[in-house]
Amino acid sequence: MSIITLTTDFGIKDHFVGAIKGTIYGELPNARIVDISHQISPFNITETAYILKNAYKSFPEGSIHIIGVDSELNEINKHIALKLDNHYFICPDNGIISLLASEIKPEKIVEINIHDRVSTSFPVLDVFVKVACHISRGGTLEVIGKVISEYKKLVELQPNISDDKKTIQGNIIYIDNYGNSISNINRKLFNEVGKGRDFEVIANKYTFNKINNKYSDIIDFSETKDVRQKDGTRLAIFNSANYLEIAMYRSNLNTVGGASSLLGLNYRDVISIKFT
Amino acid sequence: MSIITLTTDFGIKDHFVGAIKGTIYGELPNARIVDISHQISPFNITETAYILKNAYKSFPEGSIHIIGVDSELNEINKHIALKLDNHYFICPDNGIISLLASEIKPEKIVEINIHDRVSTSFPVLDVFVKVACHISRGGTLEVIGKVISEYKKLVELQPNISDDKKTIQGNIIYIDNYGNSISNINRKLFNEVGKGRDFEVIANKYTFNKINNKYSDIIDFSETKDVRQKDGTRLAIFNSANYLEIAMYRSNLNTVGGASSLLGLNYRDVISIKFT
Amino acid sequence: MSIITLTTDFGIKDHFVGAIKGTIYGELPNARIVDISHQISPFNITETAYILKNAYKSFPEGSIHIIGVDSELNEINKHIALKLDNHYFICPDNGIISLLASEIKPEKIVEINIHDRVSTSFPVLDVFVKVACHISRGGTLEVIGKVISEYKKLVELQPNISDDKKTIQGNIIYIDNYGNSISNINRKLFNEVGKGRDFEVIANKYTFNKINNKYSDIIDFSETKDVRQKDGTRLAIFNSANYLEIAMYRSNLNTVGGASSLLGLNYRDVISIKFT
Repeated sequence: MSIITLTTDFGIKDHFVGAIKGTIYGELPNARIVDISHQISPFNITETAYILKNAYKSFPEGSIHIIGVDSELNEINKHIALKLDNHYFICPDNGIISLLASEIKPEKIVEINIHDRVSTSFPVLDVFVKVACHISRGGTLEVIGKVISEYKKLVELQPNISDDKKTIQGNIIYIDNYGNSISNINRKLFNEVGKGRDFEVIANKYTFNKINNKYSDIIDFSETKDVRQKDGTRLAIFNSANYLEIAMYRSNLNTVGGASSLLGLNYRDVISIKFT
Repeated sequence: MSIITLTTDFGIKDHFVGAIKGTIYGELPNARIVDISHQISPFNITETAYILKNAYKSFPEGSIHIIGVDSELNEINKHIALKLDNHYFICPDNGIISLLASEIKPEKIVEINIHDRVSTSFPVLDVFVKVACHISRGGTLEVIGKVISEYKKLVELQPNISDDKKTIQGNIIYIDNYGNSISNINRKLFNEVGKGRDFEVIANKYTFNKINNKYSDIIDFSETKDVRQKDGTRLAIFNSANYLEIAMYRSNLNTVGGASSLLGLNYRDVISIKFT
Repeated sequence: MSIITLTTDFGIKDHFVGAIKGTIYGELPNARIVDISHQISPFNITETAYILKNAYKSFPEGSIHIIGVDSELNEINKHIALKLDNHYFICPDNGIISLLASEIKPEKIVEINIHDRVSTSFPVLDVFVKVACHISRGGTLEVIGKVISEYKKLVELQPNISDDKKTIQGNIIYIDNYGNSISNINRKLFNEVGKGRDFEVIANKYTFNKINNKYSDIIDFSETKDVRQKDGTRLAIFNSANYLEIAMYRSNLNTVGGASSLLGLNYRDVISIKFT
């Protein structure tokens, strides 16, 4: 039986997540349910995409991903279900899919049309769960919706390459648990544009001449006895999701702060790479 | 095997929740354990009741709900287990049950008396888990406790109806993840008292002439191209749990604020409905 | 199949925890995964040890515990797997094991050497999960690492006993969800040194002549009708993990505060017991 994952902005205090899991177990007693995140900033589609894009590929093919962010049904916010990259996604048609997988074309998309059978003000519970259980039991998308060919495209915060190929200008799209500021510039784009040239990363008033592959690459272990001496050193790194990130070594957002707070690198701020 | 749910004020950083799950798996290797919430405000029984009342009905009948809020055993805080609405609850006898299901009579209640067999300062782990596993294996309540007929009643924060039936006066009982302020006035009471009359909802210095069924009911889609234009609009709504709620459209408690912070509608504050 | 537990400083917003669970389910479709904590303060080994030491013993023998705190592989931070107290631990060799079980000798330790087969900047996902699944399928430690006899020892924040055995001086090592301040002085040490003598606990400018076994031991129920009258009373207690803790009765760190904030008893602060 497929795994069902949950990515929402419901938080973990309210009853919503518990109610969803109870309903799934009611339909599928042997369900395997995995929380990806319930801490999405309310209604934030960019954050949802960053988190889900970096999580879903770790799940087995055929997994079913429920996205409960900005999911109230209305004239301009339909509900869709789709198969993409051999995974199923159930979500509002609010642009999230275009941010999640801009290069991959969905294999099949349906606009969910079981709403006439359910009256609800909690569609993730009453509609998305029903659709997920249907798919998990091997049901087809056509049974719960009408095949459509288009879904809403959102193009925002894409990195910009200058005409002379000398500059990539991106933006901070996510602040992680350590306060690291993550940009929308990935390693692939950097390599394609840079072709091995020297470069300078410019973020606010800080510059970096190297992009590390590990945080501790900044340490010369022949000189440093205790890594704590380097706590708070700023660095650029391709993080484990392969995005350019400005970090502080072993930072703590709740105490000393992290790159986002100490270097002033917040959501939507500009970060540039200049090649020479 | 029955599902075991957990509703506590333990938070998710400390070792308590992990230890409870480890103990359950030790007794029941195939247990299905669901977290309802561990973020209850410490010792807050009203919050516990609001969350659990809106979650437990989504679980299959026969589910076992452990409530770990204010559960230290002492002279005036006994431990009880009961069957109610075809669900099992294991909790302190601190009034929570009366808030959880004021209209439903428990089918059977026992005062747990296995404490002489366990010496403990962590009763949720050592007593409640043992009782839950016993019930999950099909054991009866009588084996782990003495049948009692009474449990502690708490009557607090009930809405008040004026003698002339022209006013319902309630209170805010819960602030949700979006900062929405939720009252103890439900749709059923509103309909019974109002009988279709016009009305005005008064919350602090704000009034509302309509109670919506969906957040986006406030939007005229023929005029509004981007719903974000309406962000922060205040509204009254019957939420998905059917309680009257004062909300702000697409609010975010961590950034711009929500109804609770921006309209000054906090726990225990008054909210009234005047019928005309 | 063994239970796999997770103790990390990843937080629960980012994609890390979801990705780890997806990967485990990909390898072991019937895995049982339990979150112990993802809220460890970044890179804080002392906190990790306190939480895991009080949680792991509640799990069945043979359980596999992944520790994802400060786990980046480098010259001075190797990856190890070990069997200790009939549990398996997979972690960086950063001293955590010595804090976790100072009195218990590991039965077998290996330095993990599968890194040449995986290139990674997310070792908990790519290395620790692989090792955990290997052990869970019944594989031996020798297959994934080289047997070693030594691991890094950290000796910090141990309580100190005066030469005349009249004083134990300890430190606060953990602040729990209620704001209680927990020391590194446990009941066993207290009994061994004190041998039943009278004593005074001194924490900041506060003194206590009794160490309670239950929070409500401070209440005389013949005099107190409503326990809320005693909210905020300060007390010393051996907590459920048997450590000396300074608490405030029914405290709430988010509203009125707890012992840590109101009595000024924070991480590393001194707490003493003077015997007479």
